[in-house]
Amino acid sequence: MWRVLAARGFGGLTLRAVAAELGATTGLVTHYFPSKRALVRHALEVLDRRSAGRPRPAEEQAGTVSGLVRLRAVLLDLLPLDGPARAGNRIWVGSWDVALADPELAAEHAARYRRTRERLAGYAAEAQRRGELPAGPDAGEVAAAAQSFALGLVVQALLAPEEFPAERQIALVDACLARLAAG
Amino acid sequence: MWRVLAARGFGGLTLRAVAAELGATTGLVTHYFPSKRALVRHALEVLDRRSAGRPRPAEEQAGTVSGLVRLRAVLLDLLPLDGPARAGNRIWVGSWDVALADPELAAEHAARYRRTRERLAGYAAEAQRRGELPAGPDAGEVAAAAQSFALGLVVQALLAPEEFPAERQIALVDACLARLAAG
Repeated sequence: MWRVLAARGFGGLTLRAVAAELGATTGLVTHYFPSKRALVRHALEVLDRRSAGRPRPAEEQAGTVSGLVRLRAVLLDLLPLDGPARAGNRIWVGSWDVALADPELAAEHAARYRRTRERLAGYAAEAQRRGELPAGPDAGEVAAAAQSFALGLVVQALLAPEEFPAERQIALVDACLARLAAG
Repeated sequence: MWRVLAARGFGGLTLRAVAAELGATTGLVTHYFPSKRALVRHALEVLDRRSAGRPRPAEEQAGTVSGLVRLRAVLLDLLPLDGPARAGNRIWVGSWDVALADPELAAEHAARYRRTRERLAGYAAEAQRRGELPAGPDAGEVAAAAQSFALGLVVQALLAPEEFPAERQIALVDACLARLAAG
């Protein structure tokens, strides 16, 4: 399934394509996944568990570091800075087409992004308490802005990898955080 | 084709689905579009022409207004602030899955986003000359940051429309511009 998704995206994810990749019959795949939708939901759930199971960035876990350092660590962790992160992001971005055609999947996606936003908002609030970010703006809105920025950068970097190498992505995140800090 | 895309996305865009929507035979559609890929490219080209033919925001055209006002007008114009803008954006976001599976389409998408970025960079440079934005940062990087922010906000607003009504999207753009201006 990952090989089919990496090569052809959700548009090319069919029971037949997965069966061919497995060297199995379509009937065997249908035994486990009665429909394409079941296959898509399974793909997203597995991806979700993988993300949840992946160790969080060291800077996010460390108890002593600042809110701003944690915020930065989460943002960098979202970006396609290396091969595996590119592959995972490619699947997430591809899943938006399917999700926007399916209210239940869209709601699940919205909940995922809300959780990340709440994590970012917690760190933004911590940074505000420590005086690393100006106290004025609502931490939830700072988090929404930072998440929007990172998601859009993911899209740009996937579509134009030569224009957005890892160093430029990191520099853009640092410039974004510097502006947040300057208020 | 638009009805199929709006309801089912690119994953559901098949010659058969378009034929059914037209009340025609699949053979008739195949006569004009030999493959799904031809249909997808046609959809993106029509959408491109529509975007190009659409009047630009008044604030962007006006000769006397500031670079910052133009920058804001372009960013707001990208967002799903009303029904038609939601429908158009839903198709663009959905097309990323197809584009990421097809190097030629990905290159065409990258070129589209580069053109918008250059437009934004021109206004950022104008704003810098007028002293509305600090002169230090490279205008191209300011444009890349603003475009990333807007694209990510599009995705958030499409997946969670209740959480991102038009007023919140506009407020987020204004906060982003205020931070750019504060440097």
